[in-house]
Amino acid sequence: MPDNRFFSRKGPFTLGELAERTGVRLSDPAAASQIVSDVAPLDTAKPSDLSFLDNRKYRDAFGATKAGACLVAPEFADLAPPGTVLLIGPQPYKAYARAAQLFYPDERPAPHIAASARVAAGCVIEEGSVIEDHVVIGPGATIGRGCWIEANAVIGRGVVMGDHCRVGPNASVSHALVGNNVRIYPGARIGQDGFGFAIDPSGYIKIPQLGRVIIEDDVEIGANSCIDRGAGPDTVIGRGTWIDNLVQIGHNVRIGKGCILVGQAGVAGSTVLEDYVVLAGQVGVAGHLRIGKGARLAAQSGVLSDLEGGREYMGSPCLPIRQNMRQIAFLKRLALKNKTE
Amino acid sequence: MPDNRFFSRKGPFTLGELAERTGVRLSDPAAASQIVSDVAPLDTAKPSDLSFLDNRKYRDAFGATKAGACLVAPEFADLAPPGTVLLIGPQPYKAYARAAQLFYPDERPAPHIAASARVAAGCVIEEGSVIEDHVVIGPGATIGRGCWIEANAVIGRGVVMGDHCRVGPNASVSHALVGNNVRIYPGARIGQDGFGFAIDPSGYIKIPQLGRVIIEDDVEIGANSCIDRGAGPDTVIGRGTWIDNLVQIGHNVRIGKGCILVGQAGVAGSTVLEDYVVLAGQVGVAGHLRIGKGARLAAQSGVLSDLEGGREYMGSPCLPIRQNMRQIAFLKRLALKNKTE
Amino acid sequence: MPDNRFFSRKGPFTLGELAERTGVRLSDPAAASQIVSDVAPLDTAKPSDLSFLDNRKYRDAFGATKAGACLVAPEFADLAPPGTVLLIGPQPYKAYARAAQLFYPDERPAPHIAASARVAAGCVIEEGSVIEDHVVIGPGATIGRGCWIEANAVIGRGVVMGDHCRVGPNASVSHALVGNNVRIYPGARIGQDGFGFAIDPSGYIKIPQLGRVIIEDDVEIGANSCIDRGAGPDTVIGRGTWIDNLVQIGHNVRIGKGCILVGQAGVAGSTVLEDYVVLAGQVGVAGHLRIGKGARLAAQSGVLSDLEGGREYMGSPCLPIRQNMRQIAFLKRLALKNKTE
Repeated sequence: MPDNRFFSRKGPFTLGELAERTGVRLSDPAAASQIVSDVAPLDTAKPSDLSFLDNRKYRDAFGATKAGACLVAPEFADLAPPGTVLLIGPQPYKAYARAAQLFYPDERPAPHIAASARVAAGCVIEEGSVIEDHVVIGPGATIGRGCWIEANAVIGRGVVMGDHCRVGPNASVSHALVGNNVRIYPGARIGQDGFGFAIDPSGYIKIPQLGRVIIEDDVEIGANSCIDRGAGPDTVIGRGTWIDNLVQIGHNVRIGKGCILVGQAGVAGSTVLEDYVVLAGQVGVAGHLRIGKGARLAAQSGVLSDLEGGREYMGSPCLPIRQNMRQIAFLKRLALKNKTE
Repeated sequence: MPDNRFFSRKGPFTLGELAERTGVRLSDPAAASQIVSDVAPLDTAKPSDLSFLDNRKYRDAFGATKAGACLVAPEFADLAPPGTVLLIGPQPYKAYARAAQLFYPDERPAPHIAASARVAAGCVIEEGSVIEDHVVIGPGATIGRGCWIEANAVIGRGVVMGDHCRVGPNASVSHALVGNNVRIYPGARIGQDGFGFAIDPSGYIKIPQLGRVIIEDDVEIGANSCIDRGAGPDTVIGRGTWIDNLVQIGHNVRIGKGCILVGQAGVAGSTVLEDYVVLAGQVGVAGHLRIGKGARLAAQSGVLSDLEGGREYMGSPCLPIRQNMRQIAFLKRLALKNKTE
Repeated sequence: MPDNRFFSRKGPFTLGELAERTGVRLSDPAAASQIVSDVAPLDTAKPSDLSFLDNRKYRDAFGATKAGACLVAPEFADLAPPGTVLLIGPQPYKAYARAAQLFYPDERPAPHIAASARVAAGCVIEEGSVIEDHVVIGPGATIGRGCWIEANAVIGRGVVMGDHCRVGPNASVSHALVGNNVRIYPGARIGQDGFGFAIDPSGYIKIPQLGRVIIEDDVEIGANSCIDRGAGPDTVIGRGTWIDNLVQIGHNVRIGKGCILVGQAGVAGSTVLEDYVVLAGQVGVAGHLRIGKGARLAAQSGVLSDLEGGREYMGSPCLPIRQNMRQIAFLKRLALKNKTE
C-alpha cells in the first residue's frame, strides 16, 4: 500500500461502488459487495486490493496477480487468475485513474497565509487558498479561490491566477494570466522575457518583451520547465494541455487544446501547435512553424518545416514515420550488404 | 498595447524623434511631427502605433497592417499599405529594439534591501541595488551598483558581481566572478561543482572542483540553465554571449565573445567555443573540443570533433550543412526508388 | 592556486605522505620529504604544486609543466620534464582526486538551524546538521546526522534523509526516502508526481501517483535535474549512481548501481537501467524498456527497444556502435560518389 508518511487513504469501497463510479462492469455481479481497501500494482497487490492491466507487456504479471479485483479490457479477461474479480471496460487505465482518485483524493493543507510569506499591498488572495512559507507575491497580483502556492514560490506583480491552481515549491510566475485548475510544478519558470535580441556591430540589443503568458484552464506545466512570455503577441498554452518536465517553450508560441509535450521537448519562438499535437521526449520544433491538429512526433524528432495534422512523424529532420522507418531499414540493409560483398 | 498590469509605457514620441534615435529615415519627411504612442505587432497595431517587418514570412501582415508607422527594410517598402509611414533602414529589427526600449525602458524597483533578506556580515552591497525578499547572500560577497537580486535568489560566499546585474527569482550563484550588465534568469544555476569524478572499484571518487565561473560583461544566462564551475581552470563565459533557457555548460568550458546558445543546447566539459559561435536548439557538443570562430550549428546537431570556424554544420554527428543536406536528400531518393522498384 | 574567496586549503603535505595516501609510487624515493603546498592544472602549476596527466590530449602540457610533482601513468613517465617528480600509478586521475580531497576537504558550515528556516513540528533533525536560511521542512520529515540543507531548499512532509547528505539551494524534495552521503544539487526536483494520465473524451485524467523516490547511498543528482516519484511502484536510484545536470527521470524508473547519466539525458517512465549503465549527454530512453548491465550509450542516442548489456550503442534509433559508425561512413561515401558521378 502507498506509504502513509506521504499518502492518506480514503475508503474502503465495495466493488459495486467502484464499478459504478468508474463506469465499468463486474465479471461476477455477485461480487458487488466485496470490499476493496486500496489500489496496487499487479505484482504487489493483495486480495484486498484493486489493480489494473493496461499495457499488454504486463500480461504475465496479470496472470500471476494476487489482486482481489482488477480493471481490464475485455480482450484480456481470459488471462485472469482464478481468484480475481474483473472490472471490465474499454479503458481500464482511465477507470483506474478514477478509482485511485477515490482512494487518494488530492489533499491540500488547510487554508492559510504563512506569516513568513510576503504578500504585497493590493494583492487579492481569494478564500480557501494556501500561501506557504517564504512565498513572495508581487504588487497587484490576484490569486483565486482554493489555490495552493507552495513554499518559496514567487508570483510576480500583476499576475492573475484563477481558482484551484497549484504552484510548486521554488517555481516562479510573472507576466501571466493563469486559468482555473492549472498546476505548475516545482521549479517551473513562467513569464520571463524570451530570447529576443537584434544584432548590432557592438553586440546584441535586447528587444523588450511586451507580451504575456496566457495559460488556459486545466493545464499542467512540469518541473523545471520554462515558458517565456510573448515579445508583443502573447505566448498561449491551450486548455487541457499537459507539459512534462524540462520542456522549453519560446516566446510567442501558441499551443492548442489538449496537446502533450513530453520531457525535454522544446518549441522555438512563434511556432503554432494546433490542438491535440503530441511531442514525445526530446523533440525539437524550430521557430515560426505551424504543426497541424493531431500531429504526433516520435521521440527526438526535429521539425524544420510546417507539418500537416493527423499524421505521425519521426527523425531529424522528421519525415512521415513510415517513410523514416523505411529509410532506416533500407540503409541498414544496404550497409550490411555492402560489408559482406 | 502591452498590458499595463505588467508594463509601464513612456512617451509619446514623434516619428522624427524615433527616426533619429533608431538611426533610420522616414519615407515621408513631412510626417516627422506625427505622434506615436506605442509599439505593436503588425496584426494588432493601430494608427497611433509603431510596428516593424523583419521576417519575410510576415509580408502579408505588413500589407494589411493598420500601424501608423512601420520600421522596414528598403526592399519591402513597396508592399506598404497606403496609410502607414515607413521608417526605412537596413536593420529594422535592431531599430525596433531601440524604439521599444524608449517606450518600455527596463524598470527596476527603488533601491532597498528587504527586511526578510539575509545578507551575511562582511558583504558589500553597493548603492542603488535592490535585494528582494528572502534573498540569501553569503559571507564576503560583493554586489555592485544598481543590481537587482530578485526574490528567493541565493548568492554564495565570496561571489563578486559587477554593476547593473540582475539575478532572477530562485536563481543561485556561487564560486563566480560576474561582470557588469549581466542578466541571470530565474532558476539558473551558476557555480555548483561539475560532474568530475574518478572511477574506483569501490565506486566513484569526487574530484574537488577548485575553479570558478567567470562571467564577462553583457552576458545573459537563461532560465533554469546550468553552468558548472571549473575543476581547476575556470569556466568562462565571454563578453556579450547570450545563453537561452535550459542550457548545460560543463566544467572548464570556455565560451568566447558574442556566442549564442539556444534553448536546451549543451556543452560538455573542457570544450572551447571561440568567438561568435552559434549553437541552435538542442545542439550537443562533446568534451575537450575546439569549435572555431563563427561556426554555426543547426538545431539538434551533435559535435564529436573539433570544427573549423566560419562554417555551418548540421546532423549528429555533424557535417558541413550542405553535405548533410545532400546526404539526407540522397538517402530519401534512394529509399523511394528502391521501394518502387 | 584556487581562489581563497571560495576555497580553503589544508596542508602542506610531503610527497611521501601524498604517495602513500593516494596509493602510488614516487619516481624518485629521495624526494619523499619534498613539500607540496597545492594542486594545480599542468599549465599553471608551480614548483610547489602537484598536478596530474590523465588524458593523452594534454601530453604537450605535461612536457612543459613547471609542476614540482605530477601524478601520471607509467606509459607517460618518459615524457616528463626534468624538474618534476613523478607519482606513478595506473589511475592518476583517481589518485589526483584523493590528493585534492586532502588539500581541499569538503567544508560545511558549523551545525545550526537558521532562525528564518521553517521546520514543522514533529520533524527530527539529527545532530551536526546545518539548516540554512529560509529552508522549509514539512511535517514528520527526518534529516540525518551531519546533513547540510542549503538556503531556500524545500523538504516535503515525511521525507526521510540519511546521514551526511547535502541539498543545494532552491532544490525541492518530496515523497522520498534518501540514503546516506547523497548529494542533491541546486534546483533539483525530486519526488513530484510524474506525467501520469489517462485519456478521456473530456480531457486527460490525472492518475494519482502513489509511489515514492528511493535514493540509495552515495548518489549524486545534478543541478535542475528532475526525478518523478513512482505511480504505484517506486522510482529507484541505485547506490553510487551519478546523475548530471538537467536530466529527466520519469516515474517508476529503476536505475541500478553505479550508473552514470550525463547532462540532459532522459529516461521515460518504467524503464529499467541495470547496474553500471552509462548514458552520455542528451541520450533519450523510451519507456517500459530494460537496458542491460554495463551498456554504454553514446551522446544523443535514442533507445526504442531493450538493449543487451556490456555493449556500446550509438544513433537514434541506436545500433551497436560499430554498425552505426559503418552506416554513417557508408552513407557518406555513397552520397559523395553519387555527387561526382
